[in-house]
Amino acid sequence: MLTQPTDRPISTTVVEVRSYELDSFGHANHAVYLNWLEYARFEALARAGFPYGRITDRGWGIYVVRIEVDYVREARLGGRLLVRTWAEGYRRTSMLLAQQIVFFSDPALEVARARVTAVWVGADRRPMRVPPEIRRALGGEAGPP
Amino acid sequence: MLTQPTDRPISTTVVEVRSYELDSFGHANHAVYLNWLEYARFEALARAGFPYGRITDRGWGIYVVRIEVDYVREARLGGRLLVRTWAEGYRRTSMLLAQQIVFFSDPALEVARARVTAVWVGADRRPMRVPPEIRRALGGEAGPP
Amino acid sequence: MLTQPTDRPISTTVVEVRSYELDSFGHANHAVYLNWLEYARFEALARAGFPYGRITDRGWGIYVVRIEVDYVREARLGGRLLVRTWAEGYRRTSMLLAQQIVFFSDPALEVARARVTAVWVGADRRPMRVPPEIRRALGGEAGPP
Amino acid sequence: MLTQPTDRPISTTVVEVRSYELDSFGHANHAVYLNWLEYARFEALARAGFPYGRITDRGWGIYVVRIEVDYVREARLGGRLLVRTWAEGYRRTSMLLAQQIVFFSDPALEVARARVTAVWVGADRRPMRVPPEIRRALGGEAGPP
Repeated sequence: MLTQPTDRPISTTVVEVRSYELDSFGHANHAVYLNWLEYARFEALARAGFPYGRITDRGWGIYVVRIEVDYVREARLGGRLLVRTWAEGYRRTSMLLAQQIVFFSDPALEVARARVTAVWVGADRRPMRVPPEIRRALGGEAGPP
Repeated sequence: MLTQPTDRPISTTVVEVRSYELDSFGHANHAVYLNWLEYARFEALARAGFPYGRITDRGWGIYVVRIEVDYVREARLGGRLLVRTWAEGYRRTSMLLAQQIVFFSDPALEVARARVTAVWVGADRRPMRVPPEIRRALGGEAGPP
Repeated sequence: MLTQPTDRPISTTVVEVRSYELDSFGHANHAVYLNWLEYARFEALARAGFPYGRITDRGWGIYVVRIEVDYVREARLGGRLLVRTWAEGYRRTSMLLAQQIVFFSDPALEVARARVTAVWVGADRRPMRVPPEIRRALGGEAGPP
Repeated sequence: MLTQPTDRPISTTVVEVRSYELDSFGHANHAVYLNWLEYARFEALARAGFPYGRITDRGWGIYVVRIEVDYVREARLGGRLLVRTWAEGYRRTSMLLAQQIVFFSDPALEVARARVTAVWVGADRRPMRVPPEIRRALGGEAGPP
């Protein structure tokens, strides 16, 4: 179970498992979790002052370069899930985000946990510095809690 | 760059980047790689004597419990990719597979590499032993090369 | 613009356009609308007394056999959409549902409209009668308004 | 069963039903057919001299404004499908394409048929004339066979 830090904001997003996200084993396919995690990351960025439109209008991109996901419990149809997102650290052009999915109705039960490294890419398609506003808003300079 | 082992079979699968797999950054979305990797794993299992139908007919499942992916290069529309899949090791009820995506036309260029842990689940929805035929066919008992 | 009937229930579902649903043209890909429509149909069925689990537990299925969609306006990231679903008629083993997507903040603007024919399939994989409870709950025996 | 015209080219594309395209009913979800159809349309356009890159490099778009699909047979895992695409007619800024999916191993059996209307959109995001080269290459000015 991931430990949430107490010294930086934690963005929370609710998703519901939908019928078309199930695979033939009757649970959400593991690739679908990456969709939920991406959705939650863009919500976290929007709350930090960088809504998606502000990013794409400038021709910027945010490219995932590494992802680790541990799938702990099955997510079944109709289940409501809570996705928590926070910053775990930065390099010059990339940020490391931690994410945790729990059951909405029982947030002590972890469904999945993830660590995602994403690079900020400028309009010239080259890595750019992580905007200082992002670092200030998300916190987490000190690294993992 | 992942090193391919020489003491066990390497299953190869070709995929082409399709228009609907692109995101608004114009490249294949990172979640789509998990679809390709899954497709390639089921091809590897089929070649090892376990086509998907043989698995689901028995009520079995193969659940991914952990995935790590490093995204090294962008995959753009129309690109043909080669996915290589091999076994890296086993525990009683799970297998660890290594996967590598390279450009079909330039297989020395790595597009992504992944390690995927998957649990075999029986008709009773409990973990079951990895079938010995799978271990024999995929090899890799000794662990990473 | 579809006219909503006044003699039968209209089920409403809210969806938000998510980043991974965009294609390289920067708007929701047309196939994604089918996901939203499916999600809204299962909500409508659940409200009519047939949650998905009650359907699949019996080994039943609901198979789409025909879909018509008119795409009227683009759905862009972050947009909140309202999906309306109602019954338009029945045959012995199938139902015809009408669906309309509008902007949540401006429900007079139609984003898309659809007509979906779906067959009820029994545990023996053969078409079965539409459950009378569904007809009673959804109404619409009389056909289009 | 759609009748194929004999006076214009028919573009054919092969797809294989993949594990992640199945839904909990064990067959390809109906929304997935739209992905296959889109893939086949872009192949048809590429063969007509308009590869996707040539379209997007100019800032153009091709937006689906209407789709009709009849689902005739289930597509199950591992099934190889043949998608046929041809032009059925044009208006000034849009084209109407007919598409048919059949089993690769038994092309007399129809899996689905579709009619898709798509508008060409210029760099200014306004409808533009369908390029004359497209009309010449795809044919079908005369309408349905």
